[in-house]
This record gives sequence, structure tokens and C-alpha cells, in this order.
Amino acid sequence: MALSEFDLIQRFFAPFASTPAVVTGIGDDCAVLSISPDHQLCTSIDTMVEAVHFPKDAPPHGLAWRCLAAAASDLAACGARPLGFCLALTLEKADEVWLEAFASGLSEAAEFFQMPLLGGDTTRGGLALSVQVMGEVASGAALLRSTAKPGDQVWVTGSLGDARAALDYLASPPELNDFYDRYYYPKPPLRFAQTLVGLASAAIDISDGLLADLGHILEASGVGADIAAADLPLSSALMQGYSRQEAAAYALTGGDDYQLCFTAPRAHSSKLQVLADDQHIQLTCIGAITEQRGIRCTDSAGQPIEHDTPGYRHFS
Amino acid sequence: MALSEFDLIQRFFAPFASTPAVVTGIGDDCAVLSISPDHQLCTSIDTMVEAVHFPKDAPPHGLAWRCLAAAASDLAACGARPLGFCLALTLEKADEVWLEAFASGLSEAAEFFQMPLLGGDTTRGGLALSVQVMGEVASGAALLRSTAKPGDQVWVTGSLGDARAALDYLASPPELNDFYDRYYYPKPPLRFAQTLVGLASAAIDISDGLLADLGHILEASGVGADIAAADLPLSSALMQGYSRQEAAAYALTGGDDYQLCFTAPRAHSSKLQVLADDQHIQLTCIGAITEQRGIRCTDSAGQPIEHDTPGYRHFS
Repeated sequence: MALSEFDLIQRFFAPFASTPAVVTGIGDDCAVLSISPDHQLCTSIDTMVEAVHFPKDAPPHGLAWRCLAAAASDLAACGARPLGFCLALTLEKADEVWLEAFASGLSEAAEFFQMPLLGGDTTRGGLALSVQVMGEVASGAALLRSTAKPGDQVWVTGSLGDARAALDYLASPPELNDFYDRYYYPKPPLRFAQTLVGLASAAIDISDGLLADLGHILEASGVGADIAAADLPLSSALMQGYSRQEAAAYALTGGDDYQLCFTAPRAHSSKLQVLADDQHIQLTCIGAITEQRGIRCTDSAGQPIEHDTPGYRHFS
Repeated sequence: MALSEFDLIQRFFAPFASTPAVVTGIGDDCAVLSISPDHQLCTSIDTMVEAVHFPKDAPPHGLAWRCLAAAASDLAACGARPLGFCLALTLEKADEVWLEAFASGLSEAAEFFQMPLLGGDTTRGGLALSVQVMGEVASGAALLRSTAKPGDQVWVTGSLGDARAALDYLASPPELNDFYDRYYYPKPPLRFAQTLVGLASAAIDISDGLLADLGHILEASGVGADIAAADLPLSSALMQGYSRQEAAAYALTGGDDYQLCFTAPRAHSSKLQVLADDQHIQLTCIGAITEQRGIRCTDSAGQPIEHDTPGYRHFS
């Protein structure tokens, strides 16, 4: 038996996930819910469990930031304005030093992403955090996965692969890990994402790896993509620490980047660049949507790159 | 060090729990959030961890119902109309038989409470469930804890103490446990709660035990209460299985009932009874709000009953 998380959800939970108020239910970054004639609510939940999603004895300040950022990233993927979040925190014990650092990291992230803590629950058990986020969009404006069109360009924000590189150094002290901040302090571009409404045709956040996440857009939209590996945005730290091939592999399949991948009609290209420049967001076009299904990824010589890593799978 | 859950939240998390859109933040059953001029969003999250909040090897169907009912109960306490819920499910392994039964219980509860599953996350780890619920109220209509007034009557729905009695028999087969359904299949009165808007002055759901939960209303409202133990609604099963004194103790401090406790001006008494009768809700007046702080609980002879059980505390 090897149920993927996707199969598990589709088979057991999707059947009762709809009422007339649910505009988009299970299967996109956030559920979208009508609550007034002109606004819709976007909501999503993410759980992180010790020793599964983060290492044992992770620093509480960074852990708190990362957990809120990962959940906020789903709001970015919908172009939603953050309203707030709920936290379910399960702890072995109420260690005040740990809690002080955790609350401080959470508070800084809440301030950074402009989303207040709305409520929560603290329980005793193995360390685990569930963060549920809420945001709002104008009715019909939410960026979805299912609306990419052949000919659209494929864009990504930030640089990719650094969070994966951080895993190679997590046993080292933070000051010896060039990628530490990219793992514990991701900064999904929430404000930039809101300005993509009306410009982007589809969007997703990069949590499981570019190929896996772009794959979700392609599948939901019934299209394919050509990706130029030479155009992947790689940080100088990644290029210095790894071979070109390793760096590209981390960028394509690494996960945990919490940047945006979106598609947009070619006509919006220069407008997108201006918006990104204004907000100091690194924005890179890495390819184009095709009618032909599947992802074709080529190197700088135009040779196909093998990619068989399917991204993170929880139950397979 | 013995931090109560309340202290932990107030000290570490309350400081960053507010923006202008947050009408009521941490400290009531749900947070209330303005999202359009005429409606407000009510939201709350509850976590249940195996061997802490429910026994090891709990039946998955009942576990799913109980978990959703417990979270829905917070919406009842606010008089909110349910919109939907998110589920974060952490599992040791993807056991299909277990999941089938769990999804079936969750689906039946979602249908019963009229709230669709909006999204979720499945992760690997020790069995734990976080359910986050959303509901809506007309602006300003949410039932809060802080607005009980001296002279108001204190009401409870359903009968109390049965869920506590169920714990005495959880090792027995379900058919030998008269209280099994009251533990695994609580039915918070969501529809009745919505009709209390405009009639009740304050409300809370009974999750930690009547005295503990009523205590939250009294503290938030700056008042006290006289409670007549002889008027407590006790099921015939509870009265047959336990002494009068034991039954009253379970009703006062047992917890897990997921019924409503609310206060209302005396002038609404008969209207409340009519509403409850129409909806086949058992409704009982058990006392009155006083200016004098604290809870005074008396038996049928008017003698004070000792009560020092503070309800469920997670970290003390």
C-alpha cells in the first residue's frame, strides 16, 4: 500500500468538500469561499511535525517564522490580502525559554506578513504546529492553478534551491551555514502576489520543488511547459557551493523555497518586470506554457535534462 | 514551573493578536473578524492528540465526529452560521481501513453540522487532529463571553456529565457503555445558537466543564453567579449509574459535553423556552448572574456545594 497524500485526500476527503458558498475547494493552494457579494475568503492549513518537516531541536525563533511563512505562502499563491492566522501548537512541555523565542519569531513574522494571530490551541504531545491562514480577494480575483494557457510565460520569484542546500548544513552552526536564513526565514512575496491579480493567468507557491509545483499548474490547466534550466535563478552562494548541475537539481526539485511560480500572457511581460522592480522582487522568466502535456526541461545547449524526482510525498 | 494554557497564551501570544479588522481576538470562543461592512467572520481552531484528548485506538468514525463537533461547538458559542472547516491530520501511517471509517465519520458530521471541508494537510507523525472552523455572523451580532449582566438567567442546553461518565467505561465494548455516544458523538446545538443572537447576553460552549466554562463568562464580564445544583439537567442514564452527588460532580466539572451555557435577561425566558421547544432542544435555567464575583453553587437544601475542580488544564 502506498497512498500518496493526493490520493488520500481525493479518495477519502474530497467527497464532502462542497457547498454553494465554496468557490474553489480542495485542490488549489487555498479554498475560496464567498462571504459577501464583493469579497471572497481564501483559507489554507499547513502542519509541520518535528523530525518530519523540520529537524529535532530546531531553533524555535526560526521554526516559528518558517511555519507562518509556509502557510502565508499559500495566500501569496492566491493573490490574497492576509487577514490573519490560527495556530495549533502541540508541545512536549511548556518550556518558557523555548516559548519566548518561538513567540518572538512568530511575532516578527506576523508583523512582516501583516497578519495577526486570531486564535489557537495549545496541547501536549510531540512537537507539531498547524498554521491556518485566512486572506481575502475581490470576488473572482483569486489566482488559481487551473487557468494557465498555451503561450503564457512561466515566471518565478526569488532564487531557488537555497532551502534545499540548507539541509546539507543543518548540523553545522548557523554562522557556518550560508543557507540557514533561506531555510528558517523564507519570505514569500505576499504584496507582490496581490499585484499579480489581473496579470497572472495561474499561480502556485514553490513548497515541494519547482517541477512538482509547476506540475500541479500544468495538470490542473491541462497544458505542458518548456523550461530553460539555464534561466533558473540561482543565488551566488548556491553557485559557489555546488556544481552547476547540482545547483540546477536543487532549484528544480529542492522544495521549501516558498517563492511564487506563476504564468502570464506574454503581453504582460514588461509590466510584470516594472512591478517587480518597484517592489525589489527578483523576477525571472524560465519558460513557456505549451499545448503539449508534460515538462520539457533543457540545458543551455538545448539538450533535455532528466528529471524524475517528483517532489515531496508524505505517504508514498 | 507550571504555566496554565491561559497564562501561556496571554504571555507569549496575545501581544501580536490584533489589527483593526480584528473585532474580538484571543480569549473568546472564536476570533471575530470584519471582512465586509455587514458580515463578520468567526474562526477557531482545536487540536486533539492521541492519548491526551482521546484514548489510544479510539474508533476512527467517532473520533472524526467528536473532533469536528468540538470545533463546531465554538461556532455555536458565538451564534455563528457555519461556513466550513480545515483539517490538519497527522497519522502514523495511511491505513486505508482506518481512513475509510474516519472519513465516513467526518462526512456524516460535516453533513449534520452543514459545514463543508475547505482544505487540509496530511502529515506523518503521532496521531493528532487540528480542526479549524469558520462561520459568519451579522456585524456586531456575535455572542461573546464578556457581556453577561447581573440579574440575567444562566441557561444550559442538553444534559451534562454524560461525556465524563463515558470515560469510566471507555475500556468496555460500546454496547456496554451507555455513554459512548455522548463521548464520541456530541451534538452542539448550532442552529439553536444562531437563534440566540439578540436574546442571549453572553455565551460559551461547555468543553472544560460547566463551572470552568461559566467561570470564563463571569471573569470576562466582571460578575458572579448563583447556581442551583438541583436544577442541573442530568440524563436518566447518569442518574441510574451514579449517586446524586457523583452525577452532580460530573455535570459541574466533567467537560466534553459540547453543550451551550449562556446568559439572558429574565424578560426573554419564555421566548427562549418556545425557541428550544420548537427545535427539540432541552433547555434548563440553572441559576442567575450576580454582582458579587465568584460562583456559589447550592444543593436542594440551599447548602453550599464545595467545588474546587478547575476543569481541564493542559500544562499545569
